[in-house]
Amino acid sequence: MENIFTDEYFMKKALQEAEIAYEKGEIPVGALIVVDNRVIARTHNLTELLNDVTAHAEMQAITSASNFLGGKYLVNCTLYVTLEPCQMCAGALYWSQIPKVVFGAADEHRGYRVMGGKLHPKTEVKEGVLATECAELMKTFFKERRK
Amino acid sequence: MENIFTDEYFMKKALQEAEIAYEKGEIPVGALIVVDNRVIARTHNLTELLNDVTAHAEMQAITSASNFLGGKYLVNCTLYVTLEPCQMCAGALYWSQIPKVVFGAADEHRGYRVMGGKLHPKTEVKEGVLATECAELMKTFFKERRK
Repeated sequence: MENIFTDEYFMKKALQEAEIAYEKGEIPVGALIVVDNRVIARTHNLTELLNDVTAHAEMQAITSASNFLGGKYLVNCTLYVTLEPCQMCAGALYWSQIPKVVFGAADEHRGYRVMGGKLHPKTEVKEGVLATECAELMKTFFKERRK
Repeated sequence: MENIFTDEYFMKKALQEAEIAYEKGEIPVGALIVVDNRVIARTHNLTELLNDVTAHAEMQAITSASNFLGGKYLVNCTLYVTLEPCQMCAGALYWSQIPKVVFGAADEHRGYRVMGGKLHPKTEVKEGVLATECAELMKTFFKERRK
């Protein structure tokens, strides 16, 4: 039988979270943490609503997943996020020693790779999953805001 | 009249927070956010107690100060922290556009400067305030833990 639990499958769910952020007037980024094909955290950016720069989707997902697991290391977990993490989120992921990070669109301005941040050496990174859809949502958001 | 509100004055208070962390078995780091000589956030590392890698003293201080100010930009604020921020905290401080960061001991292994992170170009940085006291508390903590 075909495995339905592909990276695209989970990224689609992260994208749904990003859409919820969009509807709230937040920069549309969504995240998911998955362990053994089970979603243990699903979050979206809430920096405007919470007036808090630390409320990125990934940060909330890390806190939420740690809470669920009862430990601060995200053993056997994969993070799915629609946009390349910033240096803050990369730093948090570094501390969590998460084994895998999958992101959609690259962030050429504030992504951790241009800002100089680092993920943990143990962390496998996969980029570009549903990149067009993830980037398109961001573009539409900023186009709307400029109106 | 002499100004009592020096950087040393506030760093001493951050150090008191670090001592509270120490007593809880947490890596002893304390932080303070000050605006117009008024302390609006005082926090200490709680990563073990909360099972959450994002619970660094600085992260909590940023969330707390933003909540107090009702805005996500830490206008006119200064952060005092006993240890050089990591890349996660540097990233959060970057987003907050905080005008000044004062830290005690340098972190040669996980500080944002070795990890490759960046503070905001607007942010003035002062290091080495009560550095010996801040570093000593860390050293004692790790010596105790190795026993």
